[in-house]
Amino acid sequence: MSQSEKSRRMGAVKQITSHSNPIVKEIKGLVSQRKQRTQSGLFVAEGLKLATDAIEAGWEVRYLALGPEARENRIAQKAAATAKAKGAMILEVNTAVMSAMTRKDNPQMVVGVYEQRLQDIESIDPAAATVWVALDRVRDPGNLGTIIRTVDAVGATGVILVGDCTDPFAVEAVRATMGSLFHVPLVKTTEETFKKIAQSWPGTVAATHLKGSVDYRTPDYSEPVLLVMGNEQKGLGDDMANACKTLIRIPQVGEADSLNLAVATGISLYEIRRKNLDL
Amino acid sequence: MSQSEKSRRMGAVKQITSHSNPIVKEIKGLVSQRKQRTQSGLFVAEGLKLATDAIEAGWEVRYLALGPEARENRIAQKAAATAKAKGAMILEVNTAVMSAMTRKDNPQMVVGVYEQRLQDIESIDPAAATVWVALDRVRDPGNLGTIIRTVDAVGATGVILVGDCTDPFAVEAVRATMGSLFHVPLVKTTEETFKKIAQSWPGTVAATHLKGSVDYRTPDYSEPVLLVMGNEQKGLGDDMANACKTLIRIPQVGEADSLNLAVATGISLYEIRRKNLDL
Repeated sequence: MSQSEKSRRMGAVKQITSHSNPIVKEIKGLVSQRKQRTQSGLFVAEGLKLATDAIEAGWEVRYLALGPEARENRIAQKAAATAKAKGAMILEVNTAVMSAMTRKDNPQMVVGVYEQRLQDIESIDPAAATVWVALDRVRDPGNLGTIIRTVDAVGATGVILVGDCTDPFAVEAVRATMGSLFHVPLVKTTEETFKKIAQSWPGTVAATHLKGSVDYRTPDYSEPVLLVMGNEQKGLGDDMANACKTLIRIPQVGEADSLNLAVATGISLYEIRRKNLDL
Repeated sequence: MSQSEKSRRMGAVKQITSHSNPIVKEIKGLVSQRKQRTQSGLFVAEGLKLATDAIEAGWEVRYLALGPEARENRIAQKAAATAKAKGAMILEVNTAVMSAMTRKDNPQMVVGVYEQRLQDIESIDPAAATVWVALDRVRDPGNLGTIIRTVDAVGATGVILVGDCTDPFAVEAVRATMGSLFHVPLVKTTEETFKKIAQSWPGTVAATHLKGSVDYRTPDYSEPVLLVMGNEQKGLGDDMANACKTLIRIPQVGEADSLNLAVATGISLYEIRRKNLDL
C-alpha cells in the first residue's frame, strides 16, 4: 500500500457487504497465510476483549471490523472511536462477511487487524528483567499463546523465540494469549545469538531437559532468570542445552512420556516466582 | 452392527481403496460427530504410539487401519498382529483413504478405532485414591486431553467429568492426551451426584475459585485429594463451590485475567504431589 493510499484509508468508516471486497480478501489472507502476515507486518485478533486490550496498550490498529451486534454495543463503539481517531479504518460488515473473513461459522462481533511488534534481541536488558522465557523451536500455536498468557500472569518479563518457531501472530496463537499478547514483549532470534546471550547471562539460566539432573524445585532462581524450554517433540537441542548452566527436570511417574510444553512452562514459572516474589 | 456381522468382521484383514467404503464412512463419522461416537461407544485415535499404548493397556480395538508405510514397519506389524488375534479387523488402506478417514492432508500411518471406557461414579474409592481431578463443564478438548496427560504424569488416580463437558473421545482430546487416555480412569457424572461425593469426601476437597481466599500453596493436601477445576469461561459454579471445603487461588499479577485451565490444573497438581509424594 502506498503512503497516499494509506492516508486516504486512515480514519475512515467503510461499509462492506461483498465477500470479494479487497479488504476482506486481505484479512482472509492474514488469517490463513503466515507469509502474508510476515510480508505485511500485520495480524488478525478476534473479539472485543482483544480489541480493547490492543487499543489500551497502544498497539496500532489498521482495521477494526464491526459486525451488526458491535454497532449496538457501547464498549465496541468506544473502541472503534478511539481506533478511528488514531487512524484505523472502521469496517462495518454483516455477519456473512465477518464469517468469511475469519473462516468461522459463529464469528465474533469484532475483528481487528493490528501491526505486529517484535523487539530486537539487543533490547533485552538482564539488569531490568525478572524472568525471560526462551522457547526453542516451539511448534504449536496454542502452546505458544498459552505460554505468553502465563508469562503475563506471573509477571515475567517476556518471551524469546529461538530458531524456527510457530508464528506468534497466527490466529490460534493470538487467541490462546487471551489478550496477553498485547502486554508481553516478544523477541525473535537465532540459535547462535541466543547461545551467546545464555552464556553471558548474569543470573540463573535454567533449561528443562530430559538429561536434567536437577529437580526443578532445587535452584534458588536468583534473578534475572532465563528459563529455556525445548521443542514439543524433540525437547531442547543438545547445543542449546550446552549453553545453559542448569539443566532441570520436572519429575514424572505413570505412563506419560512428558508434560505438555505450556503446562511444564507454567509449573516452572510458578516455581521461579515463589522463590522471588511474594506473589 | 449385529453380533453375526461383528463376528464375521473380527480378526479379518481387509484391503480398502474406495472412499465410499462403509467402514471409511463409519470412521469419518466417528472423527467428526460426537453423536456417532456416543451411540456406537467407539472412538478414533491417530498414530502408532497411541495404538501400541491402547493394545498394551488392553483396550478393545475394533479396527486398526494401516497406511502403506505401516505395512513396512515392524512395530506397526506387531501391533496389528496382536490386535487381530484379539478380534480387531485390520484395514489395509492407501494414503488417500487414510487422508479421507481422518480429514487430514498428512495422515498418520496408523489409525485405530477403539471401544470407549468410562467408569461408574460408584467405582470411585476414596480410600484407594491419591488425587481425583474433577472438571466442571470443561469445554476445550485440548485442555481436557492435556489434563489427562498431566494426571498420568503426576500419578494421580483419575478424572471426573462433571455436567456438560466436551467429549474426552473427540480426536483433539485424544491427541492431546498423548496416550495417557489409555492409562487414566475417566468418570462421568452429574453436578448433583458430584456434590454428594464432594460433601462426603474423607480427605481434602480443594477447588480453584475466583473468590478463593486460600493460596494454593497453603493446604497440606492430606490424601485422598479431590481437586475441582471450573469451566474455562465461567470458572466454577457457585453451587459446586459451596460443596467444596477449601477454595484456593493461584496468585497472578500482570494484565492476564486468568490462567489457562490445563496450566492451572498442572500447577495445582504439582503442588499437591510435592506435599504427598517424593516425586
